[in-house]
Amino acid sequence: MQAVSEWYAEVVERAGLAEHSPIRGCMTIKPYGWALWENIQRPLDEAFKATGHTNAYFPLFIPLSFLAREAAHVEGFAQECAVVTHYRIKTDPVTKSVAPDPEAELEEPLVVRPTSETIIWNTFKNWIRSYRDLPLLINQWANVVRWEKRPRLFLRTTEFLWQEGHTAHATAEEALAEARRMLDLYADFIQNYLAIPVVKGRKTPHERFAGAVETFTVETLLIDGKALQAGTSHFLGQNFAKAFEVRFLNAKNELEYVWATSWGVSTRLIGAVILSHGDEKGLILPPRIAPIQGVIVPIWRNEAEEKQVVEAAYRLADSLKKAGFRLHVDADPQHRPGWKFNEWEMKGVPLRLVLGPREVAEGTVEVAWRHTGEKRTLSLEAAIEAFPKWLETIQTELFQRAYQRIKASTFTVDSYDEMRTILEEKGGFILAHWDGNTETEIAIKEETGATIRCIPLEGSQEPGRCIYTGRPSVQRVLFARAY
Amino acid sequence: MQAVSEWYAEVVERAGLAEHSPIRGCMTIKPYGWALWENIQRPLDEAFKATGHTNAYFPLFIPLSFLAREAAHVEGFAQECAVVTHYRIKTDPVTKSVAPDPEAELEEPLVVRPTSETIIWNTFKNWIRSYRDLPLLINQWANVVRWEKRPRLFLRTTEFLWQEGHTAHATAEEALAEARRMLDLYADFIQNYLAIPVVKGRKTPHERFAGAVETFTVETLLIDGKALQAGTSHFLGQNFAKAFEVRFLNAKNELEYVWATSWGVSTRLIGAVILSHGDEKGLILPPRIAPIQGVIVPIWRNEAEEKQVVEAAYRLADSLKKAGFRLHVDADPQHRPGWKFNEWEMKGVPLRLVLGPREVAEGTVEVAWRHTGEKRTLSLEAAIEAFPKWLETIQTELFQRAYQRIKASTFTVDSYDEMRTILEEKGGFILAHWDGNTETEIAIKEETGATIRCIPLEGSQEPGRCIYTGRPSVQRVLFARAY
Repeated sequence: MQAVSEWYAEVVERAGLAEHSPIRGCMTIKPYGWALWENIQRPLDEAFKATGHTNAYFPLFIPLSFLAREAAHVEGFAQECAVVTHYRIKTDPVTKSVAPDPEAELEEPLVVRPTSETIIWNTFKNWIRSYRDLPLLINQWANVVRWEKRPRLFLRTTEFLWQEGHTAHATAEEALAEARRMLDLYADFIQNYLAIPVVKGRKTPHERFAGAVETFTVETLLIDGKALQAGTSHFLGQNFAKAFEVRFLNAKNELEYVWATSWGVSTRLIGAVILSHGDEKGLILPPRIAPIQGVIVPIWRNEAEEKQVVEAAYRLADSLKKAGFRLHVDADPQHRPGWKFNEWEMKGVPLRLVLGPREVAEGTVEVAWRHTGEKRTLSLEAAIEAFPKWLETIQTELFQRAYQRIKASTFTVDSYDEMRTILEEKGGFILAHWDGNTETEIAIKEETGATIRCIPLEGSQEPGRCIYTGRPSVQRVLFARAY
Repeated sequence: MQAVSEWYAEVVERAGLAEHSPIRGCMTIKPYGWALWENIQRPLDEAFKATGHTNAYFPLFIPLSFLAREAAHVEGFAQECAVVTHYRIKTDPVTKSVAPDPEAELEEPLVVRPTSETIIWNTFKNWIRSYRDLPLLINQWANVVRWEKRPRLFLRTTEFLWQEGHTAHATAEEALAEARRMLDLYADFIQNYLAIPVVKGRKTPHERFAGAVETFTVETLLIDGKALQAGTSHFLGQNFAKAFEVRFLNAKNELEYVWATSWGVSTRLIGAVILSHGDEKGLILPPRIAPIQGVIVPIWRNEAEEKQVVEAAYRLADSLKKAGFRLHVDADPQHRPGWKFNEWEMKGVPLRLVLGPREVAEGTVEVAWRHTGEKRTLSLEAAIEAFPKWLETIQTELFQRAYQRIKASTFTVDSYDEMRTILEEKGGFILAHWDGNTETEIAIKEETGATIRCIPLEGSQEPGRCIYTGRPSVQRVLFARAY
């Protein structure tokens, strides 16, 4: 476990994804990491729009009193809120030190949004009058802040970037269907674009989002045997509508409270990608989100060769770029080929295309696959033609590999001792019966460090006996130690 | 003037662009306003990338001590900084009221970034070692906070969205060239996409960005005769490199301080669009950034007609969408055509296409131009064919119209009295001589409300005498009352 966490920190740094900032818990996302985030954002944003959602933007700050209106919500976030108390700073004329100006204290402190339900429902109050205004399907791309005691780049940071969907509906059924639809959208996106298999499920009451009636989640298992919550979708019932008095006139002209959902995924997904596919050489990126899908490395020994191979490299890059792919030519004279090979392997580029004088003379190219290490020399035309197909195959194989890994680390367990042994020895997903009581859940967590990741929506629904208490259980739930 | 400000507030609200939030000075950007911002972001982002810049992301929070390192910088922003002092809140068990937890006070308060030079240069320190790491060309899309006493939606808000470019160079010449290049990029973008003519110039020392050696600006004149700073690009010299000790080894193996630029445009551009092209009916949007380029309104009297015209409307929309245009069909049965016409005029949609039973029977469509009010009925095929060209023509005509308006409101003035009269009676750009002294600049500002918008980079450079002091002046500068 220790080894993986060191490997993770090293890969994030050496691949140029992100770094810690001087502000505890806040990260700097470096250009390569940001490019990855853009490639996650774009298809997600398109998927939201294709399902009828529109983007909007709500304030960064939330008045303390708003947060307080939904009791469970404030309870859930109180421990991790950054609070703005002053709106001006002052330089001491003598010491030149700077401090908040005591004369510029806010009457009501503001919280930096940890999530936006409260400010958004306060706004929805004015946007919703009648059933004709529903459903209201809004998404926001934003930064949020949750003070983090044990930060980990991408996985747990005080400031992180995310999208948060907030929708309003006329009926409970519609809102529930929306929450489920977005869960499915997340699962499809994560599986198809990030090549990460997920388990869809419901959270237990104890693990629910603060203020939700039902929280749906997509959970995955990482290479260190720990689980990660990759995205959540909440059915909020009428909790926020009641807290902010949001009612609508139904078709019978009666006033009713509105039904709500919210759902989000964040920069944490980048952590999931790293810890789903990486190996001892570094990152392995799924082609669909890789900032660079193929790196072309020209090799030369003298100036005459240099001109020839570098030109050939750019010609090859151009023809693939024109076909819509993301190529990079590394003709940097400062580094030797071996150094470059390591560098681009560390950065997880799916395909490496090498052009030396011999390849140029023969009209061939040497192709290396990052995820298998396979190398092949073939004609340039064949490579250009096969390139799109190779990317598709890599995408599928990465998913299959992760799927097999997770399958091999998922254990159906009927005794508490067995569960403890597995957790200690190798980690993994554990499917076991649970009696449905929060006390049991907490006791297991305290004794083993494992939490109930979800109550799976798919798979066996067969009843049994709780591994901890022996009391009846309606179906197995998914336990794991988690990030 | 009063009339325009009321008109502005009404258009922003009725067109569904934005609204005030309960947090003083912070706005909610509504879906239609956000769609406009996306259409501004996308081409700008492409232009940055095409000129070699890459995106990254830096923390929202800046330690107070960082801000204090560059003296002019902290001086410039001290009055408008939101300060985070606590990282936890606490609910009073009796009153249930919520307050910052006194036991969770930060050792060093954090400022919510008003701009990111300090945090970024503190980071660049670790990214730059030798001349080979330069130039470093970074951009960030982010929210920033500057406490605003007199907020105005889009034009002046406490929180606003922007991009901020931050670049590092080996020489002063290179950094200056970058600052000028980005100024040109802004001018081209604003003129070509927003159809807003701008004057490029340098700011006076008094109006410079806090911490800059030279600030370049693009200024425009709005329909109320007031000027607006639409974007700025700063040559920062070595100020931030020195404040954060950022040095590089040059080719001769000597340590030198790095040279810097920063540049930004914000959601304020949306305010510029509204106040450059709008009229008594509402918004007029340039086709290149309009979320909807053409609205199709089917008209019917009975169910049989409804089916026929609505189907025809969607067919027309599809054929134009396939060609890459942004169309919307308004088949809402709740509203009458007249209401819809007003609504889409208010929202500034460039072209309206009306299909009634007669048009469908005859294979024609009635086309109405938002910016001129012109209406024409022509064959459907002719309309589909001409549609792209119409959009281009509208784009050009909006620019020309704004250009003529600004030209007619730009006055070359040689007496202070004349300047005062113009400012009182109609506003506008005033080209006049100034002696180069800050005291003169401040005196003129105090007496007339006009500031020096810029020292133009283009146009006449002929010397003269200051209109205020009679002292020598090297060239005319641009005065105006401004937002």
